[in-house]
Order: sequence, then C-alpha cells, then structure tokens
Amino acid sequence: MLSAPATPDRGGHAPDAISEEQDRFRSSLTRTIEDFLTEQRSVLAEISEESLPLISSISTLTSGGKRMRALLCYWGWRAAGGSAGAAAPVIAGTALEFFQAAALIHDDIIDRSDTRRGRPSVHRQFSTRHSEAGWHLDPERFGVAAAILAGDLCLAFSEELFTASCSDTPGGGARVIFNRMRTEVMAGQYLDLLEEAVGPDQTPEIAEERALNILRFKSAKYSMERPLMLGGALAGADEDLLSAYSAFALPLGEAFQLRDDVLGVFGDPEVTGKPAGDDLREGKRTFLIARALGSSGDDTRARINAMLGDTALDDSAVATLRRLIVGSGALDHTEQLIAEKSEDAFTALEGLPIDPVSRRALRLLAEAAVTRSA
Amino acid sequence: MLSAPATPDRGGHAPDAISEEQDRFRSSLTRTIEDFLTEQRSVLAEISEESLPLISSISTLTSGGKRMRALLCYWGWRAAGGSAGAAAPVIAGTALEFFQAAALIHDDIIDRSDTRRGRPSVHRQFSTRHSEAGWHLDPERFGVAAAILAGDLCLAFSEELFTASCSDTPGGGARVIFNRMRTEVMAGQYLDLLEEAVGPDQTPEIAEERALNILRFKSAKYSMERPLMLGGALAGADEDLLSAYSAFALPLGEAFQLRDDVLGVFGDPEVTGKPAGDDLREGKRTFLIARALGSSGDDTRARINAMLGDTALDDSAVATLRRLIVGSGALDHTEQLIAEKSEDAFTALEGLPIDPVSRRALRLLAEAAVTRSA
Repeated sequence: MLSAPATPDRGGHAPDAISEEQDRFRSSLTRTIEDFLTEQRSVLAEISEESLPLISSISTLTSGGKRMRALLCYWGWRAAGGSAGAAAPVIAGTALEFFQAAALIHDDIIDRSDTRRGRPSVHRQFSTRHSEAGWHLDPERFGVAAAILAGDLCLAFSEELFTASCSDTPGGGARVIFNRMRTEVMAGQYLDLLEEAVGPDQTPEIAEERALNILRFKSAKYSMERPLMLGGALAGADEDLLSAYSAFALPLGEAFQLRDDVLGVFGDPEVTGKPAGDDLREGKRTFLIARALGSSGDDTRARINAMLGDTALDDSAVATLRRLIVGSGALDHTEQLIAEKSEDAFTALEGLPIDPVSRRALRLLAEAAVTRSA
Repeated sequence: MLSAPATPDRGGHAPDAISEEQDRFRSSLTRTIEDFLTEQRSVLAEISEESLPLISSISTLTSGGKRMRALLCYWGWRAAGGSAGAAAPVIAGTALEFFQAAALIHDDIIDRSDTRRGRPSVHRQFSTRHSEAGWHLDPERFGVAAAILAGDLCLAFSEELFTASCSDTPGGGARVIFNRMRTEVMAGQYLDLLEEAVGPDQTPEIAEERALNILRFKSAKYSMERPLMLGGALAGADEDLLSAYSAFALPLGEAFQLRDDVLGVFGDPEVTGKPAGDDLREGKRTFLIARALGSSGDDTRARINAMLGDTALDDSAVATLRRLIVGSGALDHTEQLIAEKSEDAFTALEGLPIDPVSRRALRLLAEAAVTRSA
C-alpha cells in the first residue's frame, strides 16, 4: 500500500545509526522535561507546597508518549541543516510535548475520559485525591476545576519553553508557526465539538467535507505538518523548503488521523488499550462515519445515527455497527484514502531537497504513523 | 485612612494631563485589541466560518473592563523612562488584558457563574447558542467544553501578543516576570480551590495565613505587582527599581484584594452589581472569614461554618452572617489591615525614584484601588 522503497540508502546511514541518534534526542528531551519540571516544582513550592500536585499531574503526561511531534521537529531541524546535538530542537520539542499534555488534560475533561494511557486522567487524579482525603464539597467538581488550572499551567509552561528555544536561533518564523499551530488546534477542536452537536443534521457530502476539515486542523497540521515546519524554521529554512515539508507532512498527518479513526472503530482492544468501539460510544463524527452515513440507504442511516453516541452500546451492538460500516463500503473507501494520502506523502518525501539520513528518518517515522495498529 | 498627601505636585502635571495621557493609552489599547481580533478572525475564518464564535466570546471580555493591569504596566514603563507614545507597553498591556480574559473564562466555568460584567459568561453564551439552535446532545456540556477551548485560545493570544511586545525592547527580564506571573496566578487559583475543600478543617491561625498567601499570589501579585514590574522591565528598569516597584504594588494589591473581600460580603448590590452576600453563598474562605472564625467562640464558629457555602442563603441569613462577622471584630480588623497595607504602599510610592507625573498617576490608580465601593 505504501510507496516507500525497500532498498536502503547507501553511505552507512543504517537504521541503527538513525535510531541511535533518535535515542540521544529522546534522552535529551526527557532530561530537559525533567529539569524544567524540577525547576517549576521549586517555583511552586515557594508559593505553597500544597500546589505541587499541579506539577505531578503534568508530569504524569509529559513522562511518556511516543514523542512523535518532538521527533518531527528534530528531523525538520536536521533536514534544514541544523546540527545533531543542538539545544534548540530539544527545547522546542519539549514545548510541543507540554502543549500536547495541556491539550490532553483539557480534552479529557471535555470527553469525560477517566483514563489516559492506562492511568487516571488528570481530573480523575484530582477528584480521587479529594475523595481519599475526605475533603468538603464535591470531588468531581474539584477534579474538573483543578484539571482546568493544571492544563492552563501546562500551556504556560509550553510557551515558556518555546520562547527559550527561539532565543538564540535564526528562526523568527518558528514563532509564527507555533502561534498558528495553537490557533488551528483549538479551532479544530471546537469544530469537532460542534460536529457532535450539529453532525446528525448535515447532508452526507457536506459531512464528509467537514470531517476532513476537522481532521486537517485538529490533527494533521498539529501532529505532523507544524512540528516538522517548526524544526525547519528554527534552523532557518526558507519558504520553499517549508512548503515542501508541508507537501509531505500534511497528507501524512491526514493519513495518520484517518488510520486513527479506523482504529477507533475496528482496532483490537488488546493492541490499542481502549475498549472496542469506544469512538462509536462517544459518537465521534469522523470521515469514516460520515462516509458510512452517506453511502447507506435511509433505513441503515437511521440505524447508524440512532446507535452513534449511545454510551451504553454493548459488544453485540458495536459488532452490528461495524458490519453496517463495512457493508456501506466506507471502510474500503477510507483505507483507499489512507493509501492515496500516504502515496502523496511518500512521493513528496522523495522529492524533498534534504540529506539522506533525514530522509530515511522521516520515512521510518512516516511508515510507523500510517501502518500502526495502536 | 490613606496617607496620600492632598497637595498636588507642581509643574503643570495636573490630573487632567494625566487623564488625557491615560485616555490616549486606553484608546491605543482598545485599537490594538480590535486590530488583533480582526486579524485572528480572518485566521479562524480560513479554518472555518463556524469557528468564529470563539473570537466573539473572547471579544465580549476584552472590549470592557477597567484596564487596571494595562494601566499599571503603562506607568511602570513610563516611570522607568519609557516614552509616552511607545508601542511596547500597549502591546504588553493588551497581552495582560487577554490573559485576564482567559482567566475569567475559565474562572466562570470553575465557579459556575452565569454572568460576567452583567452579560452571560462565555460557557453560558455557548450553551445558549446550542439550546437556541436546537442542536443534539447536552447544551451545558457543549457550553463548558467550548469555553475551555475559548479560554485556551485566549491564553495563546495573550502569549502571542506578549512575545510581540518584547521583540524590540531592551526588556528580556519582562519575559521572566510574565512567566512567573502566570504560574503564580494558576497556583494561587488552585490553592483557593483547595481552601474551599480543606478550609473548614484548618485551625484559625493557619487559615488566616493561608488566606493571605492565596490573596497574595492569586490577586495581589497578578493584579498589581507583576503588571507594574512588567512595564518597568520592558523599559529596561534595573533590579533595584523593580524591587522598589514591588514594595509599592504588592501591599497595594493586598489592600485591593482585602477590599474586594469586604465588598463581597458587605458591598451594596446597587453599586457592586452582584447580589448581596454572594461570596458567602459561594463559601469563599477569605481572610475576613478566616478571621471571623478565629475570633468567634465555638458555637458561633459552628454557625458560620454551617451557613458558608450554602447556595440557598436568603437575605435574612446573609444579614445574620454579616452580624456574626461584624460581632467577631473581623471586619474592623480587616479594615485596619487594609489601612496598614495602604499606608505601606503609599509610603513606598513616595520613596520611588521616579518622575512626578508617573508618581501622581500611580497615586491616583492606588487611591481608586483601595477606596472603591464596587
């Protein structure tokens, strides 16, 4: 399905060397995150020891994850001529990780998710703290309120780090990209929210267009295109190179999110770590769903609409919904779209005017993004 | 009660000249806010016209208000030698206004406040939009979710503006102050939240200390000290001048918040625009309340604790609580503390090594802050 060539680049840039370089970057990133949190812990301790749970809650989210955005930022930097051991992409990558953590904290409030990466979500951590201590008033309300503040603090941390990454690089353009990225992801999340509310009343063609627009802004640009461009801009990449980055990373990000949507409905719970059909219970109006509704007859469409967003859907109802989606041809169509977007991305990658190591590294990241099963 | 001298400074710096200068600053500020929002409106429109309500919601909060923080930033700049028509304090002031708007949006979610400055709060605007359009799912939940995102966007806007204000000024120290200010206010808000939950179990002396710590970080530093220092740092003020600013603005901010706490219990609804005793129904654990609890006998303390935070308190219960607070001596004590803090502030103001126009302007702002009735 993917057009990535199987023959390795010559010149000793074996995948091992790349993965060693990435490991070094990841270690620096983790160390920078830890050092920053240690510093902030002492800032908060001066205010009051009791405010420290804010830092702990942020740390549960910044200590893990795939670091995908940070790695894209790194290779965007390297491919634009930045040196391997430089601090700027590490700090910018850290800023991206904190931004993502902030988005997850607030997202989990919005989605009322009790878990994140197999641990309690932040609002749940705070409500549990409240219950266990036997404090006054409502634990749930305390949990949500504290998590709103923890997310805000985490956003501020992200910004603090990002500013530091810009301080001695040529990349003033990076600030513009970072600003735009934040606006895009927040607008995209709002549109996503709106879609749950107005989605059922859209005509199918419009619903598909809307779903693609949401995934572009909420996910594709944010998770792939902007991090890569950010790294490039920090290293002083010109507009042409940044556009070429975009031509690769935007379709890649779209394919990545379409894959995510497919996994949200058809993923194996053993592999994804999420209950089967969770996206169906949440009523997410993804492209896959929009397509299924648009390709079904009136009766089937009504059945799908009636089941979507029902938080009590049991396994057999999930299985029925899956059958209806497959039967509509929407799964095949989405897989085809993933293949096309991937093809576009890999073609653009081969045309990028960058060194072979960076190209190979980006190819490995891209392959992992679109063929993953979790 | 206040130590501000009644004799005017000589040299033609009449209050009129100051108020004209402030009006010019306020006009620039309002224009900058409007221009920025116009620009952001077009960024969001490119993503989707449907995301524009995010901007409208932010605009309801940034179009009004006293601009107190921005004015302090301005006079901090001027007093440190910055010129009257410069752009930097306007842009930094705008950043402070957006930060405040973001804090209010999230605060109103946390406090479940339906109104803000006599208009619907942002989460209420979005839930009404949902209800009126007859959309699917829960309007309340949509309102809260959209307001979380609107607040996040507003925080990002604040940052975007702040960075612009630093770009061609000598003040790298301003960034450090801005970072610290955000952390302080979020930690302070968390402590405030915590106090509602753990407050009733504190011993009185500890409760008073905690209340003072909260008002220092959540309000005094954020509303007064940091904005003034920010303006100074932007103009290149040295550490000595910044410390002197702090010696004036921190006690002023404490007096300001103590006044606010008194008005929250004893304010005239006709003047404050808030229902009488609203802070009592919310169960706010202010210094005034901590003092009342600490100065009362066991029976009275139990009565106060039982009524605090009861959202159904009627006017007669509010009157009873007020009587108990007055009877405990807590109101007198708080007024005395306000007078002492004000005295400290005005003494420090007279010692500031700044020009007479700035001194007079700061005196006028300070008097308004501690003698207000709304």
